[in-house]
Amino acid sequence: MMSTIKAWAAMEPGAQLQPFSYEAGLLGAEEVEVAVEYCGLCHTDLAFINNEWGTIPFPLVPGHEITGKIVALGDVAKSKGLSIGQTVGIGWTNESCGHCGPCLDGDQNLCTTVKATIWGHHGGFAERVRAHWIWTVPIPEEVNAADAGPMFCAGITVFSPLMEFGIKPTDRIGVFGIGGLGHLSVQFCHAWGAEVTAFSSSASKTEETKKLGADYIVSSRDTAEWGALKGKFDLIIITVAVPLDWDKIIEMLGPKGRLHFVGIIYEPIPVSVISLLGIQKSVSASPGGSRGVLDKMLRFAAHHNISPMVEHFPMSKVNEAIAHLNSGKANYRVVLDADF
Amino acid sequence: MMSTIKAWAAMEPGAQLQPFSYEAGLLGAEEVEVAVEYCGLCHTDLAFINNEWGTIPFPLVPGHEITGKIVALGDVAKSKGLSIGQTVGIGWTNESCGHCGPCLDGDQNLCTTVKATIWGHHGGFAERVRAHWIWTVPIPEEVNAADAGPMFCAGITVFSPLMEFGIKPTDRIGVFGIGGLGHLSVQFCHAWGAEVTAFSSSASKTEETKKLGADYIVSSRDTAEWGALKGKFDLIIITVAVPLDWDKIIEMLGPKGRLHFVGIIYEPIPVSVISLLGIQKSVSASPGGSRGVLDKMLRFAAHHNISPMVEHFPMSKVNEAIAHLNSGKANYRVVLDADF
Repeated sequence: MMSTIKAWAAMEPGAQLQPFSYEAGLLGAEEVEVAVEYCGLCHTDLAFINNEWGTIPFPLVPGHEITGKIVALGDVAKSKGLSIGQTVGIGWTNESCGHCGPCLDGDQNLCTTVKATIWGHHGGFAERVRAHWIWTVPIPEEVNAADAGPMFCAGITVFSPLMEFGIKPTDRIGVFGIGGLGHLSVQFCHAWGAEVTAFSSSASKTEETKKLGADYIVSSRDTAEWGALKGKFDLIIITVAVPLDWDKIIEMLGPKGRLHFVGIIYEPIPVSVISLLGIQKSVSASPGGSRGVLDKMLRFAAHHNISPMVEHFPMSKVNEAIAHLNSGKANYRVVLDADF
Repeated sequence: MMSTIKAWAAMEPGAQLQPFSYEAGLLGAEEVEVAVEYCGLCHTDLAFINNEWGTIPFPLVPGHEITGKIVALGDVAKSKGLSIGQTVGIGWTNESCGHCGPCLDGDQNLCTTVKATIWGHHGGFAERVRAHWIWTVPIPEEVNAADAGPMFCAGITVFSPLMEFGIKPTDRIGVFGIGGLGHLSVQFCHAWGAEVTAFSSSASKTEETKKLGADYIVSSRDTAEWGALKGKFDLIIITVAVPLDWDKIIEMLGPKGRLHFVGIIYEPIPVSVISLLGIQKSVSASPGGSRGVLDKMLRFAAHHNISPMVEHFPMSKVNEAIAHLNSGKANYRVVLDADF
């Protein structure tokens, strides 16, 4: 009854990860158990390890950018198009209720009782992990599962706004921050047909960012460069977690333009109503994406040959991988290869 | 060549209005001249008289909720479906270029060189006023022109968001402030088929607000009453110009809910990204509405028997009317009857 699961856990806030095992109990009827092969390392994992939200239960097994193979299916999960041995991904969302308003509308990521893979649930830095069948997502054959983990958090987080807000190929999009999320955002927006401006703090990445699909590269720090961009953008996506000159960023939006956050910024954004009102601008934020949009993202990524740029570490070197990410030297995204 | 126009003007910031006349010059090819019969008194007129934005040219002839009859048509305006003697309305927007992106998209109110009726242009507290033909709006026969002035600013301002943001009859809408804008918003939202909650500071208006179409009345000041409304609204419209507990208001939004401002609040709104991100909320603002939406609003208002509640003053008593509005005692909206 495979109920003991080996993992890497932080035993208390801020701790190094250490070997840990836990009893997973009986598999629920709607649950799927997946043998982890790869798991991305996201900044939210670090925020949780450091208990930045102050509400995280410990011990904590991080990891929510998982790819692997199904090893067990609950009784209900058996009839949902999944099969033992199938390659799947599991992201931020682990469970949704199926019967609340947003679930019935197909917005399962907005479920009123949504559960996360690493919040009161042990995540993917483990030999196995469980999720509700609806969040156990088949990976198309054309997608390389070894690198695909980050698609299930970073990828869907930046892809979903394109679907949700009716973004058109004729639109002009600005992407702030060309890291784990941003380098996928640039690829998606380019494949979408849109004109893409990357706002980056790193001049060294310029050529690479152009190869990803950016039409223009602008400094995210030198606001003097922004003057010529006033009124230009239909959408500006903020993937960074640092305070910026929000008034000047809102000025770069055109008619009906939207400033959209896909990561958490702890300091409130001081939004001037007059800066929005003149030409009907919006400020918004969103978490991940719905289950249907996840499928569409994977198909779109396969069609356009979009994939995360990743560096692999063995999972047993997870603490080195975390130090590497913290140093700011990670080449976009780190993926851990399970080696229990 | 009717070029001298009698009017009421503030000669300097904060002054009482006084009789004034100005030379309007030759009528432009795209212009229409209208004999003013009625003109609403809007809070923005007061803000302009007091030069609250610090950029208003004086002498200032206020008034941008005008109804009256066409008395002259420029050479180009003659071929635009308008005729001498026709009853028309003129609102906030006086001119748009016709060739910028928003104009070409039918969003003429967002024109990049938009001109307002009272900003560097003399408004409707006058015997006659001029506007570009596209902003000289035919009033359907079923609409009572004597009371219709406020539709061209207050009305379109609260009607446009219903069109722009895909608001559905199944939505639940909160309206903050049941004054000039709010009492029209309640009527429109009710006719739209939506469930309407009016947030009002005035308990004395409760029965009247219910008659306008509010399903529920809640205090806009006693935030304890708001607890039960967490996660309820698809749209909350803010028609008041005072700081409120924005965090608590955003909490009342449901999945994909929108907090929308239709008036200017000078203090920045401190928007917490995390409060938006969980269930994909937005904050936005908009100015008036497009020309096509103005026509649809008038047709919708006629169909649903929606009209502003107004108190009439002779225009010669404009200073008394302003004092009445400033006292907070105005019964929703004040309309001045031209009596030159």
